[in-house]
Amino acid sequence: MQNFDYMTPTRLIFGKGVVEKLPSVMAQFGKKILLTYGGGSIKKIGLYQKVVELLKGYEIVELSGIQPNPKYDPSVLDGVRLCKEHKVDVILAVGGGSVLDCSKAIAAGACYDGDPWDLITYKVKAKAALPIVDIITLAATGSEYDAGGVISRTDTNDKIGYIDRLLYPRVSFLDPTYTFSVNKKQTAAGIADAMNHTIEQYFAEDTTLLNDGFCESMLRSLMVNGRRCLENPEDYTARAEMMLACTYGCNNILSLGNSPSGWPCHGIEHALSAYYDITHGEGLAIITPRWMRHILNEHTLPRFVKYGINVFGIDPTLPQKEIAERAIDETYHFFESIGIPMHLREVGIDDSRIGEMAHHIAVNEGLDQAYAPLSEEDIAEILTKSL
Amino acid sequence: MQNFDYMTPTRLIFGKGVVEKLPSVMAQFGKKILLTYGGGSIKKIGLYQKVVELLKGYEIVELSGIQPNPKYDPSVLDGVRLCKEHKVDVILAVGGGSVLDCSKAIAAGACYDGDPWDLITYKVKAKAALPIVDIITLAATGSEYDAGGVISRTDTNDKIGYIDRLLYPRVSFLDPTYTFSVNKKQTAAGIADAMNHTIEQYFAEDTTLLNDGFCESMLRSLMVNGRRCLENPEDYTARAEMMLACTYGCNNILSLGNSPSGWPCHGIEHALSAYYDITHGEGLAIITPRWMRHILNEHTLPRFVKYGINVFGIDPTLPQKEIAERAIDETYHFFESIGIPMHLREVGIDDSRIGEMAHHIAVNEGLDQAYAPLSEEDIAEILTKSL
Repeated sequence: MQNFDYMTPTRLIFGKGVVEKLPSVMAQFGKKILLTYGGGSIKKIGLYQKVVELLKGYEIVELSGIQPNPKYDPSVLDGVRLCKEHKVDVILAVGGGSVLDCSKAIAAGACYDGDPWDLITYKVKAKAALPIVDIITLAATGSEYDAGGVISRTDTNDKIGYIDRLLYPRVSFLDPTYTFSVNKKQTAAGIADAMNHTIEQYFAEDTTLLNDGFCESMLRSLMVNGRRCLENPEDYTARAEMMLACTYGCNNILSLGNSPSGWPCHGIEHALSAYYDITHGEGLAIITPRWMRHILNEHTLPRFVKYGINVFGIDPTLPQKEIAERAIDETYHFFESIGIPMHLREVGIDDSRIGEMAHHIAVNEGLDQAYAPLSEEDIAEILTKSL
Repeated sequence: MQNFDYMTPTRLIFGKGVVEKLPSVMAQFGKKILLTYGGGSIKKIGLYQKVVELLKGYEIVELSGIQPNPKYDPSVLDGVRLCKEHKVDVILAVGGGSVLDCSKAIAAGACYDGDPWDLITYKVKAKAALPIVDIITLAATGSEYDAGGVISRTDTNDKIGYIDRLLYPRVSFLDPTYTFSVNKKQTAAGIADAMNHTIEQYFAEDTTLLNDGFCESMLRSLMVNGRRCLENPEDYTARAEMMLACTYGCNNILSLGNSPSGWPCHGIEHALSAYYDITHGEGLAIITPRWMRHILNEHTLPRFVKYGINVFGIDPTLPQKEIAERAIDETYHFFESIGIPMHLREVGIDDSRIGEMAHHIAVNEGLDQAYAPLSEEDIAEILTKSL
């Protein structure tokens, strides 16, 4: 077991109707709020109106139009400018993980005099950040319970994970009813995203019975409840359990003491969505089984066997290699069964930039240090098999 | 799934040698430290000397002799007096859960002008508490990651769980090597304590696949690693995993969204250790299987079946009732196999005060609201069966 230094100070306020507590929560942070959101879905479900009504008496500045795979320019830069101009006290992010990720970069940038890109690329360590509160409307990224955000820069095809303890949301509101209107495509992408977060932590060295069991529970729960959410989008119990499971995905509670795995599928997928702006969860679902097949060898076999038996209930008396192969097939078929396009071509990606992407990933993502080390050639092969 | 409001802001610094970080951690809280500890085991393992050496330049006031089932008088009262006299900035608790529990009550009492008992009994809500840092030397209670402490008052036979968000340790240092010297009796009691914390959360209404899986992983991990710790007390990996598992026991992360279970075994055991000052973990191990047998009925049967199959690997094709009975037997035999005296008589408790204790529990512990409601008669019967 490896040493670790861990903390997740975020307060989770979870359940139907909890947003009513918003005024008392916001009061502790000040009077000037930057309200961040995306393309308007929060208006369709009435949440925007509810928030504005609850926050009567506060001064609200708005930053809307934050896109999936949130962009440094214009969203982060606009947000930083607004915070500085209006001397904002606190950011309230309302939406999915992208809105929140973007808000984290803004929170740090607002307290820094230079170019926020210095912070995101760790050239400069942030000394402070504005407090962040969020109301999450999509079960997927786990950003509501972690200290990271992923920011894309279209001019350089960079998609960078930016992590700093200053960026934990102070309070995250999670009301599962706000996810009732999430469509099938986004629900499925959320399931795949959270499953991959778990898989990235499960396939590692120095794992424990405890962490393995936590991860296996996550995967079983996400599959069962994910399906229920797709079958009946207003199944409160299923939406709630899926929302909570997603929340645990990225704050390391599933893998404390494990050796770092390198999060290889994320390393690869970040290039896909940086180059092609595809849906992150779909990219992960496409990559994951191909990556699994690529790294299956004598050394990794026992992990796949455990995964197959405990997650998919595969007969443990079968030959080990067969259990592993079946486990990978099951992973593929689960994603396919929830409606995810399982080939890069289906999401608009052909082979024309595979070499370029593989090179970008190999240079920037450090996957030669991953659980199963990946060279540029390995990455290119995984991408090619995913076409 | 029930609504919840959850936060655990404690920073965990975990692993071999991590105590070297103590000076930099303490620096953020001030210069005057109340150092709390128990009967001197930290001197035997050299930790006391190490801490004093690391904290050269700090002003250290000491409160030693804190007992298991820590006492309001003298420990809490002495600690509060010392904090006020010396204008202490921060408490450093070094030892097991009892030292830390006591320190939490001191931390609140030090910031209150009246009788600290007002706070512990919730007559007055604490407005502030001194910051607490701990170095934990016993894997058991989970106090290092929760906001509660249990305080005993010998003059009234009260043993009260005192919980307040102000009482989360700011930083908990967990070095598994400090648990190498924990003897078999205390190691076994720690295993039983953490297992019971998990069982208290598992047997509840509104549980989820996710929480059930987390709890089952906890129990399997505690049994496997607990045994390894007993067989080889210096097995770092086993001590480390057991230490981490114990840490999760009491901060609700295993049961977010479950209905409150009432923690019935704790309700009953608190009276045992208040009246007879027995080892908490042993009391829990004795009560747990008798409580299980008592509450097994048509309604609770499916819980016991799930528990038996997923925790003990009992054949799922057996009749349900048989699975449940076997699961209870396995629970009993596991505790017995790790050397715990499984009868109250073996720990010095006879039938002379059962009526009095059952009455005390029924009046004070609210077990008529538990997962399986318990009357005074039920409690007396469980105690009698435990003799």
